[in-house]
Amino acid sequence: MSTAPWRDPALPAAARVDDLVSRMTLEEKTAQLYGVWVGAATDGDGVAPLQREMTADYDWDELITLGLGQLTRSFGTAPVDPALGAQALARAQRRIAGAGRFGIPAVAHEECLAGFTAWRATAYPVPLAWGATFDPALVAELGGHIGRDLRSVGVHQGLAPVLDVVRDLRWGRVEETIGEDPYLVGTIGAAYVRGLESAGIVATLKHFAGYAASAGARNLAPVRAGVRELADVTLPPFEMALREGGARSVMAAYTETDGVPASADPALLTKLLREEWGFTGTVVADYFGIGFLQSLHRVAADPAEAAHAALEAGIDVELPTLNCYGKPLVAAVREGRVPEALVDRALRRVLLQKCELGLLDPDWSPETGEEIDLDSAGNRALARRLAEESVVLLDNPDGVLPLAPSARIAVVGPRAADALAMLGCYSFPSHVLTHHPDVPTGIDIPTVLDAVRAELPDAKVTFAEGCGVSEPDTSGFAEAVGRAAEAEVCVAVLGDRAGLFGRGTSGEGCDATDLELPGVQAALLDALVETGVPVVLVLLTGRPYALGRWQGRLGAVVQAFFPGEEGGPALAGVLSGRVNPSGRLPVSVPREPGGQPWTYLQPPLGLAGEVSNLDPTPLFPFGHGGSYTTFAWEDVHSPEAELPTDGTYDLSLTVRNTGGRAGAEVVQLYLHDPVASVTRPDVRLIGYQRVELAPGQSRRLTFHFHPDLSAFTDRTGTRVVEPGDLELRLSGSSTDVRHRARLRLTGPVRPVGTERRLRCEVTVTEG
Amino acid sequence: MSTAPWRDPALPAAARVDDLVSRMTLEEKTAQLYGVWVGAATDGDGVAPLQREMTADYDWDELITLGLGQLTRSFGTAPVDPALGAQALARAQRRIAGAGRFGIPAVAHEECLAGFTAWRATAYPVPLAWGATFDPALVAELGGHIGRDLRSVGVHQGLAPVLDVVRDLRWGRVEETIGEDPYLVGTIGAAYVRGLESAGIVATLKHFAGYAASAGARNLAPVRAGVRELADVTLPPFEMALREGGARSVMAAYTETDGVPASADPALLTKLLREEWGFTGTVVADYFGIGFLQSLHRVAADPAEAAHAALEAGIDVELPTLNCYGKPLVAAVREGRVPEALVDRALRRVLLQKCELGLLDPDWSPETGEEIDLDSAGNRALARRLAEESVVLLDNPDGVLPLAPSARIAVVGPRAADALAMLGCYSFPSHVLTHHPDVPTGIDIPTVLDAVRAELPDAKVTFAEGCGVSEPDTSGFAEAVGRAAEAEVCVAVLGDRAGLFGRGTSGEGCDATDLELPGVQAALLDALVETGVPVVLVLLTGRPYALGRWQGRLGAVVQAFFPGEEGGPALAGVLSGRVNPSGRLPVSVPREPGGQPWTYLQPPLGLAGEVSNLDPTPLFPFGHGGSYTTFAWEDVHSPEAELPTDGTYDLSLTVRNTGGRAGAEVVQLYLHDPVASVTRPDVRLIGYQRVELAPGQSRRLTFHFHPDLSAFTDRTGTRVVEPGDLELRLSGSSTDVRHRARLRLTGPVRPVGTERRLRCEVTVTEG
Repeated sequence: MSTAPWRDPALPAAARVDDLVSRMTLEEKTAQLYGVWVGAATDGDGVAPLQREMTADYDWDELITLGLGQLTRSFGTAPVDPALGAQALARAQRRIAGAGRFGIPAVAHEECLAGFTAWRATAYPVPLAWGATFDPALVAELGGHIGRDLRSVGVHQGLAPVLDVVRDLRWGRVEETIGEDPYLVGTIGAAYVRGLESAGIVATLKHFAGYAASAGARNLAPVRAGVRELADVTLPPFEMALREGGARSVMAAYTETDGVPASADPALLTKLLREEWGFTGTVVADYFGIGFLQSLHRVAADPAEAAHAALEAGIDVELPTLNCYGKPLVAAVREGRVPEALVDRALRRVLLQKCELGLLDPDWSPETGEEIDLDSAGNRALARRLAEESVVLLDNPDGVLPLAPSARIAVVGPRAADALAMLGCYSFPSHVLTHHPDVPTGIDIPTVLDAVRAELPDAKVTFAEGCGVSEPDTSGFAEAVGRAAEAEVCVAVLGDRAGLFGRGTSGEGCDATDLELPGVQAALLDALVETGVPVVLVLLTGRPYALGRWQGRLGAVVQAFFPGEEGGPALAGVLSGRVNPSGRLPVSVPREPGGQPWTYLQPPLGLAGEVSNLDPTPLFPFGHGGSYTTFAWEDVHSPEAELPTDGTYDLSLTVRNTGGRAGAEVVQLYLHDPVASVTRPDVRLIGYQRVELAPGQSRRLTFHFHPDLSAFTDRTGTRVVEPGDLELRLSGSSTDVRHRARLRLTGPVRPVGTERRLRCEVTVTEG
Repeated sequence: MSTAPWRDPALPAAARVDDLVSRMTLEEKTAQLYGVWVGAATDGDGVAPLQREMTADYDWDELITLGLGQLTRSFGTAPVDPALGAQALARAQRRIAGAGRFGIPAVAHEECLAGFTAWRATAYPVPLAWGATFDPALVAELGGHIGRDLRSVGVHQGLAPVLDVVRDLRWGRVEETIGEDPYLVGTIGAAYVRGLESAGIVATLKHFAGYAASAGARNLAPVRAGVRELADVTLPPFEMALREGGARSVMAAYTETDGVPASADPALLTKLLREEWGFTGTVVADYFGIGFLQSLHRVAADPAEAAHAALEAGIDVELPTLNCYGKPLVAAVREGRVPEALVDRALRRVLLQKCELGLLDPDWSPETGEEIDLDSAGNRALARRLAEESVVLLDNPDGVLPLAPSARIAVVGPRAADALAMLGCYSFPSHVLTHHPDVPTGIDIPTVLDAVRAELPDAKVTFAEGCGVSEPDTSGFAEAVGRAAEAEVCVAVLGDRAGLFGRGTSGEGCDATDLELPGVQAALLDALVETGVPVVLVLLTGRPYALGRWQGRLGAVVQAFFPGEEGGPALAGVLSGRVNPSGRLPVSVPREPGGQPWTYLQPPLGLAGEVSNLDPTPLFPFGHGGSYTTFAWEDVHSPEAELPTDGTYDLSLTVRNTGGRAGAEVVQLYLHDPVASVTRPDVRLIGYQRVELAPGQSRRLTFHFHPDLSAFTDRTGTRVVEPGDLELRLSGSSTDVRHRARLRLTGPVRPVGTERRLRCEVTVTEG
């Protein structure tokens, strides 16, 4: 098509981009900066713009004569056979490339929060479940699987992971997060990114930044937070995923913090992200987020001002419309209201990424030639393993679990026999069913009831739904109570229905006013407990719910966070004992439904005290989780020590499986900083290691602590390591302290920047 | 006693203080910087240190040989006859003056939140009720009455007002605040200060700053807020009360904001307060607040470090112990850990204030010679007027109110026949009853039931309690429902019991997890409503509660916020029609119990939208309140206008009483800023005027708007007036917009500082 320098793979990418930019008209430039929300034709013949509220009104064929920078969600809108979807996307790309002067295809984006959000693609456990695994290596595998599947159908960029740190459990998107601790979110999130990027897919870190802390947990409400909360809680996972994961894209958050919308914040998107952290990839808008600068934030008077503010802040790509970066931006540049240099700055980033993706090369072809199976046996095995590792045994005081193989079991509850109970809001089925409720899910999703029956063929299993998820109807209670009363054990499967914008009890736009179980499920559980038959509560939820009401009254409590298509068999395995539970809570389970927000990252003032009648202590703390075996923590080597603020300290122990079953222990390392120049969390996670052990087996774990891990942001806004006493706590959960190592850091206050260590490495050897 | 220069009233105060400082030992210096919590002997013979947890262990007689800077709460601990209390205080002062080398008495402090917190002193309505009056002139009178009463018994400093702006309605101390709007809090608060200071009493602004925004509304929990929220919401009332009220003392808050404890924050207590605002008075610690720097904030390793941090930040006085500013500080200065200059800086401020109070003068005498009557007829008349103006008629859709003189009335509910239902936590009875439950209140407090019977002698009034305030017992429902069913109208008097630290449902340390009416009162109200008899709900509460459950089902709703000792007759007057209600809501009344926090000061993102299923719109908005008469707003003069950012604009209207009864209207002026460089509240109050009108009478109101009132804190932290469009909304409440004036400010962005106008003056003329 062209023999211009920009087409020459032998030249440096920057030179190619410079050449290409110099050849483009203003309209062609801006066309690279926006994306269009499309859907693939089910017959494989191209894509068409989504016809939905808020998407733009334009002529597609005319539009693409300028080129088109981005195409988003071809697979996400309606059920399309993956192979035909790939064909449709490839044809669309050929049309886009053919229509413009330069023949450049679009960057194709897709959602992939808990698996590729496409029909017949594996629905993996949600990120909150990844958090519960405390297993970054497994999550990196997940990222690799998802990335290869995306690549196989011609997708370049995945709009995941969510690195928001939970600040209010009532928020509907808690299920999409990895939990309430920045270290856990950062380590697991970076692993996912590593996996995705290793498959050649551009990972997109979102939502940058602050979104999870919306006031009252109402989705997208303003965030009240100060600079230290942002620096020390909100931002570290992003830094980790960039430095350790190599993410090449970042999505600007919808939200505003203390009056400044993220999408119009140069301090965040340029000064911090690019100048301090050295990020060189693209920043994309959250959907409609640039227009929201006018309509919802009112920091712009019209779409051109919104475009200006977003470009100046550092957003390179508008999604999924051209409402601002299209004609309004072109006109504003022509009128001299927006410098063309801002357009060029974004354009260079977009084109550089296209160059790196091979989209500017003469031999570019949209057909990948890869085998397309988005729900392969390998995927399912991985989904199973993730699900198994993510189940958290919260309580099992009398050994009601595992169930006897021939038990009489009443399985009850609104989540027991619904395949969708396994899936989060961003799974394809949950997402698309919002618009097409009659579409088949396209994947095999055994329910808990199915799986229990398959798992325990000799058991007598009865079932009653009892009630719906959120409906007020209690007419089914009697049947459920009857089933329970006749059984030896009742498995009550309660929880959420994931959905979009009020169509569920969890998910985007499905926020809760408190942490009471939805609908009449709490009353159903009361009724079941009153039978006197031991009740095993199985929770399939997108957030933790308050369980204090049933403290000491349940046979066992099992928490699963939307465990995905293999979640049913995983849970049945835990119930039967085939699977030894090893998940740990990535979020605190509260005692009371009210009194939010609270997370475990509290300075002393935020813990229970005498100055308020309210006690926020959770029922089950962050990091908590049980097992069917027992572990001993032995031969702890943790001498008192003095070291300089840039010294090192090794802390080691032997973990031994002292029970009769194979199992996994999660050793957690928390930091307690007794005196600092600003208030600090009483404890916070700074390291962890999951270790699988056969009965009798042991392993030696050595935590390599560096004082960088004690760094925080001081009153001047500088991140520092302060001298003084520290306590490292080897713990089974955030409150279950097993051993304390006391250190004294010496020397002056040491400022630390992006070069600092972010992670506590752990060496595992035969013990 | 001395003829030294410091004793010479003819010399300038600063010179006297310099001289005195030069003569003092370190121990004598620090002795001026702490206060001791005492109680007056009931026989009038001096005071004794309070023996309670956390107060120090020391020998009083030995202690005062060093002098003693401050004496606090002589009257606050136990019931003592006011005249004997005054005598006890005077004797104690003579002893203190006699024991030290210099003969200097202490500054005597007392609580006076809603009246002097002393036995037999008038219990006025709580500050939240002052907010409801929208009547600063009346609140200034209140300050004057309280000040004169304090002065009459020898007190110098009053530990009020609370200028915290409500940020979470669940907080137990909401009753102590003036509401959720900084302009209302600032104007009413400044009026109180003006009154108190006009009587010669040092007013103490508290809690400086941020305390109301504690996370989860747990008293004293950390505050998550950014610099703009602090600058534009939290701090303005303090600035107003200093500039317009002339307050001479400020109390440092317990809390921390974004990691920095207020009591250890030089940026707040010195740079802002003194260097920018020009404050020259004293900063006192909240009780035990300096020690909390070690125990609760952990920014100090020991009491000496806590003393150092507090002194350096700018706290001059430790209350009510000498745990930090006593021996630990002396030792630290001797060891060179704390510069003596910091002690001297605080000392000069304390002595300067003592000098101004006449406490260094040779003719000083502790006996005031004033008549002592802390609950005079004048006080009671004022208490009545305040109570009457503070009652808010929330709803009266069918004119159930006023009640017919001969109606059959069932008065029910746990707050109907309890005198303490009228009083807030900081009233003497509520406060002291925590420790001495059998003490008589010492003042006459008619209950609602008493007052209704007195007000409507021809009515047939029956009574049933129905239930307790917070107890789960529903056994009294049947009787209450029976009484209601037999009546023509049921007056349900529900609400809070004020108390300390969990002993009440409202008050310090009595926080709520949600905004459901306490105990089983909601269920009682349900049962009463089901009778079909019109129910008039009368709320005696310290915070608003969610009323959405009864929307459209109540005959009328009357909100009173602990209306004080004359609250019963005031409410009975509203019920009978003798009093025409004129209060307006200083806080929003929510629809749902959960979903907090929320106040009306929301940018668009914080209002109801499509991105969350939750709708935070309150049932009754800020500023709402009804009347038994009607008002017309006529002849509005509000031309569209362009003016420079330092121009002026007058907006006028005529308000006419078009009904048949005398009544008061509150005209409210809100600002809507359609586009700004940071997000702004959709509307916020910038002016108001209460106007009393006989039937047919009218008045012309002119609001003198200055663009300073549109100022806000920009991204750089500078307070600016930005050019652009503005809309001024003449409104009956924050949502009831009657007229809009559209302005365009022209010129460059204008930075504004402490010289800016804080208040929208209103001229009222015959109309």
